[in-house]
Amino acid sequence: MNWEIIGFTAGIVTTFSFVPQIWKGYRTKHLRDLSYLMNASLTLGMSLWLVYGISKKDVVIIAANIAGMAFNIILMIMKYHYGKTAGKAEKNN
Amino acid sequence: MNWEIIGFTAGIVTTFSFVPQIWKGYRTKHLRDLSYLMNASLTLGMSLWLVYGISKKDVVIIAANIAGMAFNIILMIMKYHYGKTAGKAEKNN
Repeated sequence: MNWEIIGFTAGIVTTFSFVPQIWKGYRTKHLRDLSYLMNASLTLGMSLWLVYGISKKDVVIIAANIAGMAFNIILMIMKYHYGKTAGKAEKNN
Repeated sequence: MNWEIIGFTAGIVTTFSFVPQIWKGYRTKHLRDLSYLMNASLTLGMSLWLVYGISKKDVVIIAANIAGMAFNIILMIMKYHYGKTAGKAEKNN
């Protein structure tokens, strides 16, 4: 059994998990229920994974975490943007 | 520099990222904008990380991914429950 392939697949699946969330947000123009703190905390955690990956010279960890950070930053920008365009009627915390 | 501590902290931060999302959902009773596919895909990816962690006998990877899977399963159950109680008026996909 090649465990590295399992780890590699795990990294790909978790990283691309954020794509359906981006797609749903884009489609509905709503990300009210998403927590900024979740996305910010994931971005912070992934930046630490990135440092760890660089220290280990592990290309998979580096690439997966750069992509994951980008997805989470995109989600925060989308949430901010949709919250602003929806106006004050929409509670957006 | 102890890179293992960076990796350990990264695991803790990313795993507990889901706690503010659970808290926000519990507080507002809304998780409409959350994508089931994101939570399901994260759960699947983390189950693969768990297999990888078991193969490597890495307690940190094992513990972090069990907790992460639990948080994502809780979010899916909450979303389902809030979607049902909100009735048909609320689009919940």
